[in-house]
Amino acid sequence: MKNMVYIQSGGPTSVINTSLYGAIKEAKKHTDEIDHIYGSLNGIEGMIDDKLIDIGQEDEEQIELLLQTPGSILGTTRRKLPKDVHDPIYLKIVDTMKKHEIKYVFVNGGNDSMDTCYKLSLLTKELNLDVRVVGVPKTIDNDLACTDHSLGFPSAAKFVVNTVNALSMDACCFKVGKVHVVEIMGRNAGWLTAASDLLPEQTRPHLIYIPENKFDLEKFLVDVKKVYETKGYAMVCISEGIEFPRSNKNARVDGFGHAQLGGAAAGLCEIIEERLDLPTRAVEFSLTQRACPMCISKVDREEAIKTGETAVKAALKGVTGQMVVFKRVSQTPYKIEYQLADLSLVANAESVIKPSMMVDDTRMSDELRDYIAPLIEGEVELKTKNGIVTMANWKKVLVK
Amino acid sequence: MKNMVYIQSGGPTSVINTSLYGAIKEAKKHTDEIDHIYGSLNGIEGMIDDKLIDIGQEDEEQIELLLQTPGSILGTTRRKLPKDVHDPIYLKIVDTMKKHEIKYVFVNGGNDSMDTCYKLSLLTKELNLDVRVVGVPKTIDNDLACTDHSLGFPSAAKFVVNTVNALSMDACCFKVGKVHVVEIMGRNAGWLTAASDLLPEQTRPHLIYIPENKFDLEKFLVDVKKVYETKGYAMVCISEGIEFPRSNKNARVDGFGHAQLGGAAAGLCEIIEERLDLPTRAVEFSLTQRACPMCISKVDREEAIKTGETAVKAALKGVTGQMVVFKRVSQTPYKIEYQLADLSLVANAESVIKPSMMVDDTRMSDELRDYIAPLIEGEVELKTKNGIVTMANWKKVLVK
Repeated sequence: MKNMVYIQSGGPTSVINTSLYGAIKEAKKHTDEIDHIYGSLNGIEGMIDDKLIDIGQEDEEQIELLLQTPGSILGTTRRKLPKDVHDPIYLKIVDTMKKHEIKYVFVNGGNDSMDTCYKLSLLTKELNLDVRVVGVPKTIDNDLACTDHSLGFPSAAKFVVNTVNALSMDACCFKVGKVHVVEIMGRNAGWLTAASDLLPEQTRPHLIYIPENKFDLEKFLVDVKKVYETKGYAMVCISEGIEFPRSNKNARVDGFGHAQLGGAAAGLCEIIEERLDLPTRAVEFSLTQRACPMCISKVDREEAIKTGETAVKAALKGVTGQMVVFKRVSQTPYKIEYQLADLSLVANAESVIKPSMMVDDTRMSDELRDYIAPLIEGEVELKTKNGIVTMANWKKVLVK
Repeated sequence: MKNMVYIQSGGPTSVINTSLYGAIKEAKKHTDEIDHIYGSLNGIEGMIDDKLIDIGQEDEEQIELLLQTPGSILGTTRRKLPKDVHDPIYLKIVDTMKKHEIKYVFVNGGNDSMDTCYKLSLLTKELNLDVRVVGVPKTIDNDLACTDHSLGFPSAAKFVVNTVNALSMDACCFKVGKVHVVEIMGRNAGWLTAASDLLPEQTRPHLIYIPENKFDLEKFLVDVKKVYETKGYAMVCISEGIEFPRSNKNARVDGFGHAQLGGAAAGLCEIIEERLDLPTRAVEFSLTQRACPMCISKVDREEAIKTGETAVKAALKGVTGQMVVFKRVSQTPYKIEYQLADLSLVANAESVIKPSMMVDDTRMSDELRDYIAPLIEGEVELKTKNGIVTMANWKKVLVK
């Protein structure tokens, strides 16, 4: 058993394929230990249904384009595996591993995906299989535990910061301004929304609401009214996860059983218009914040490559049941070390913003700004054709 | 009377300040003819209320930053002037012109703003004032008549193309895909939405709906269902201006008396879920499409500078009541000539997509793609600090 399989899981980011790039590059250096580099189609589904592709069949140029291709090139899923690792579905996964002589398994994902990763590591140990399962951290929400931050967050934060920057310039120029409510991803953790506080005073949002604080609708309305009366417009950033009484939304759930969010800005704007009689504009960053190649942070890209490499090196050394994590060893200059953490500690834990990172319930502190600032540094060059960013377009040859 | 005043009007674009940059640069070359360069705060409001700023007081570095600053640095308005040029409000404008010895007036805006511009030119002629009024075309909707295209459209189109490109990569990677409905600006003209058809096959939207075609909800549902059944997901781009029976939206109007749009994607998604029982995702590009500095097209920037220069040169030559327009004199290589058109022909006319630019009601033709392709060419370099695009921050010293 000398093959490896790479699994992308959960929501994509603008650098999820960059970690894969790093893993491929590293794996290709070890042809004595790794014969074939496979990808599992649509996350764990490919392992269940025996749908692996042979990444070795892809051209070098197509591998390079991973660096600027958002979405998950291998396909992804939000499917959550059963709690009991003796459920028959795990047998199908093991069959696929055996059939394709898989020795190295990499799962690139967020909290729920690390749970999948953890279960696979438990199962392979229990069955005494010579398989190493290593996690690669990814989530724009930045809520993975045991690591300084997660891949994808820096680029999404860079999108948030720069887009709020631009929107503030647009918002402030009307004689009769509006209350702009910008909705940013983050279910339980407000990291991405909080990133908007890094802006210089001219374009910094006036008010920031994150799910770490209990949302008080009445105080919110007082805050908004005050800003509007002083400035003639208001720039408000909210996390999608803040809770307030919604009027007209139907609850929907994703594959992991979480309620699907979105529509919070529109809901708050409705309330503002009704209660304060002020003109509003709801802006939802939606999927663009996790997919925009124009906002990839150089730090995020470099760390994603290095993380993919580190995961492969670790697996080759015999590591299993662990995830690559970052430890910030220096703030100025910014420097991280790549370490490993037990998946048992990572799976389903959650990292949220600490009280010391806030000044109050609408404003972040220097501690938060210092934490995020180095992550959004640096621009990357993108290959374009006729003004359009070139995307990878893989052959995806199935392994028989 | 040897001073000039520049007026920014209507919705901003990512290059509206770039035209101003061109005008300032050119005006500074003619100190013998132009003593002071003024800006009218909040569009025509500044002329009515005598609120002009002295652009000569701004530092050189702050002038340079106009090239990458979205929003209207001088402030803007959507106020529409009364039809009758003998309305007392025009007297206030004339008073401001006389008080500040204004000889050159530039109005940078779209259809409604060119109407304002036209009226000012009529009035100053009627009063026999030695004042030249020249229009600078701007609108991301690209619906201004008499010109090949309008400034701001190329960069907004570049945002649309590249963002749909990224979202398509995100949308196609889930095993159970969704119907993604992307809402793009354009009230009566679908130019921006149509731009998404420039993408290569992998990421090109499956269906495009523009307001030039009557929207048939039943056919739309059939189209969407067919794509979803074939592809497992669907990427649909719609103009905000397409009309269908809305369930829950309150009509709102802007300062020009137009209904405020937005929410079309969300409305269609509701209908798709109800009628087709398919999962959906509504994405509204909202204000970001007109403000994103990361997507400024090099062609748009260069043309904006040149247009500002051309307007100043024309005014100095005695031109009044005209707008700078572009004539495409060569397609390969792309080349335009800067000309002038009577504001009487421009004001309130509208340029929309011709039938020959469509293959059918969901797909554009080569003619449309050839028309837009050269406009989105070329990337610009942006000055950044700590990963954040630097915005102009003007002193705005009022002229006494």
